[in-house]
Amino acid sequence: MSALPQPSPALNAADRRRLDDLRHRLVEHAKRFAGYPVNAEFDYQELLDLLAYPLNNVGDPWCPSLYRLNTHELEREVVAWFARLTQAPEGDYWGYVTSGGTEGNLYGLFLGRELYPEGMVYYSEDTHYSVAKVLRMLHVRNLMVRSEPDGRMDLQDLRETLHLHRDVPPILFLNAGTTMKGAVDDVRGVRQLLKELALRDYFLHVDAALSGMILPFVEEPDPFDFREGVHSLCISGHKFIGSPLPCGVVLARRRVVDRIARNVEYIGSQDTTVLGSRNGVTPVFLWYQIQRQGVDGFRALVRRCLDTAQYAVDRFAAAGQKAWRHRNSVTVVFPRPPEAVVRRWCLAVNEDIAHLITMPHVTPQMVDALVADVVAGPETPPV
Amino acid sequence: MSALPQPSPALNAADRRRLDDLRHRLVEHAKRFAGYPVNAEFDYQELLDLLAYPLNNVGDPWCPSLYRLNTHELEREVVAWFARLTQAPEGDYWGYVTSGGTEGNLYGLFLGRELYPEGMVYYSEDTHYSVAKVLRMLHVRNLMVRSEPDGRMDLQDLRETLHLHRDVPPILFLNAGTTMKGAVDDVRGVRQLLKELALRDYFLHVDAALSGMILPFVEEPDPFDFREGVHSLCISGHKFIGSPLPCGVVLARRRVVDRIARNVEYIGSQDTTVLGSRNGVTPVFLWYQIQRQGVDGFRALVRRCLDTAQYAVDRFAAAGQKAWRHRNSVTVVFPRPPEAVVRRWCLAVNEDIAHLITMPHVTPQMVDALVADVVAGPETPPV
Repeated sequence: MSALPQPSPALNAADRRRLDDLRHRLVEHAKRFAGYPVNAEFDYQELLDLLAYPLNNVGDPWCPSLYRLNTHELEREVVAWFARLTQAPEGDYWGYVTSGGTEGNLYGLFLGRELYPEGMVYYSEDTHYSVAKVLRMLHVRNLMVRSEPDGRMDLQDLRETLHLHRDVPPILFLNAGTTMKGAVDDVRGVRQLLKELALRDYFLHVDAALSGMILPFVEEPDPFDFREGVHSLCISGHKFIGSPLPCGVVLARRRVVDRIARNVEYIGSQDTTVLGSRNGVTPVFLWYQIQRQGVDGFRALVRRCLDTAQYAVDRFAAAGQKAWRHRNSVTVVFPRPPEAVVRRWCLAVNEDIAHLITMPHVTPQMVDALVADVVAGPETPPV
Repeated sequence: MSALPQPSPALNAADRRRLDDLRHRLVEHAKRFAGYPVNAEFDYQELLDLLAYPLNNVGDPWCPSLYRLNTHELEREVVAWFARLTQAPEGDYWGYVTSGGTEGNLYGLFLGRELYPEGMVYYSEDTHYSVAKVLRMLHVRNLMVRSEPDGRMDLQDLRETLHLHRDVPPILFLNAGTTMKGAVDDVRGVRQLLKELALRDYFLHVDAALSGMILPFVEEPDPFDFREGVHSLCISGHKFIGSPLPCGVVLARRRVVDRIARNVEYIGSQDTTVLGSRNGVTPVFLWYQIQRQGVDGFRALVRRCLDTAQYAVDRFAAAGQKAWRHRNSVTVVFPRPPEAVVRRWCLAVNEDIAHLITMPHVTPQMVDALVADVVAGPETPPV
């Protein structure tokens, strides 16, 4: 027999310097990180000892697993919390913690396509770019609908296209917080259209990546959740809550999931999640923040972020720059600034617009500095 | 304006106890963790400070990104290292660090289906259960081929089925290390069949989740890599290398990826990875282990694990239990023991067999204890 395990050699000095360079870059870029819907204000220090184990939440978190180095129990609590937040009917939901938005949207659209294999997916031109890839993977008929200038799906265009394809069940991919403009599609208006056109077989998925953690905490929320007849929805974990590892939650009505369960049995498996091996640490991160903040903590945080967003709109206006936001959105849209400003502030841009997103770590001081750079224009130092 | 960020409240005592319970369970289960192809022997302590940042390797690691809190540079080095390991031709490969096996196989099969939308996927009955789900998602014609008793694809059956469908391009999903028996499909035999049947348009994907980190380090490897004409392959990171977060690498021939790049452009995106937002820490974990171990370190580690596997076969034999393994495999197959033993040792089971996998953390002492429990049978304490 071979000898017992030997400790691995240490990293050499050159490699250690490379890691230090990486750390240095991260510190620098984190200072002006204002263009993405990602909260940089979190501290999971007291959970990091969990990374000593080969955690894996493989499989359905609601079924027993032979792979016991998992955090399924906390994962179920996280899912149940989001189910309450989004008004899923007690006992009629299923869900799990995903690797992020793509997986959640892939799951929702997969569900829709399984229910209506000949269905047509409708989504607006303001939908996240990854959805086109997901639709391509799923080999499902799909059709892009025009958007209003403010980013919401154009319901007149939707009505016309639905009318032209009344022979196939519609699968609607709606947004609660579009990527560039933070717009919330009019879920009630869409359901009204379906009723008017006597389209009774349909599937409704909502991508609530960012606004799914905002709307439940405001006084006059735009409708987006299970009360509105939605069949599945997903919310990101690394966006509003914040996490060093991308993650999210996908939820679906249990009765919809059960209708495709027979198919899953047919393939000889209870393999209900999109990914098999799954991150076991991110459910603990989410659980930890939920326990610490609670609904009241998140409500205060949302209030603060919305206030900062309005502050930014006002500061832009005072500086003579057009800027705007939706009422319940932390996404502040303004004209695309010169490249140096884009790079300096990690701004996401699309054609002639850019946005600042006032996540919890974005302070009024950062807003002031960003507005000053936008005004200074090409004079801005690139990093 | 609202006040500046307030620190989040601390976890309450009850929640703190729940985390301690979780830690206690992990410590207990880790002691007898011998049934899964997952290395528990790693220490990433000196990298955990990176988890203070909202890292995200969103998008193609080979393209510049506006989201600058990424580790694309180290990710590219990891991919390049695996490319050399699997003999990918210099300058003619593309790849990225995935969330694990499902994503890698989904990518490979997506590539195959994009090249041959009317193609037929062939895979053996010993293929990982998640592949059936992936095929279902991709809406691609597929056909399960019989396996030999030792777990390899039955080439006689493959020949007959290929013969019946000579009018459609075959997409072959082959295994380098099957889930239950560690078998390596005969890649050369498969290519010979394709030649005999004059099937010139085909796609070859290899799932080398576990053995992709074993075969490059043994003296007489079973053929499985790019030298054999493979178009894409994937290797897990949390399996042989070890990681607290599931991860892997997928690699594909550049010219194949480029052929579908036009399609990707058509959908208006350079969104080449399956998941959009991607884990930025796992590439650093893999880079760290690669730098520390190097090829020589991994070769010694593979040798040790293969020795332990043979030791287990011998111990089972000495105890009067039938057990066997493939020559280059750390998967030791034996008759399914009573439920108490399965639970105690986190054993993966399938019908009448179970397996022990001698990953780096599995010592001869653990093997002795496991064999003793198998012999004791139902007398084994369940945990």
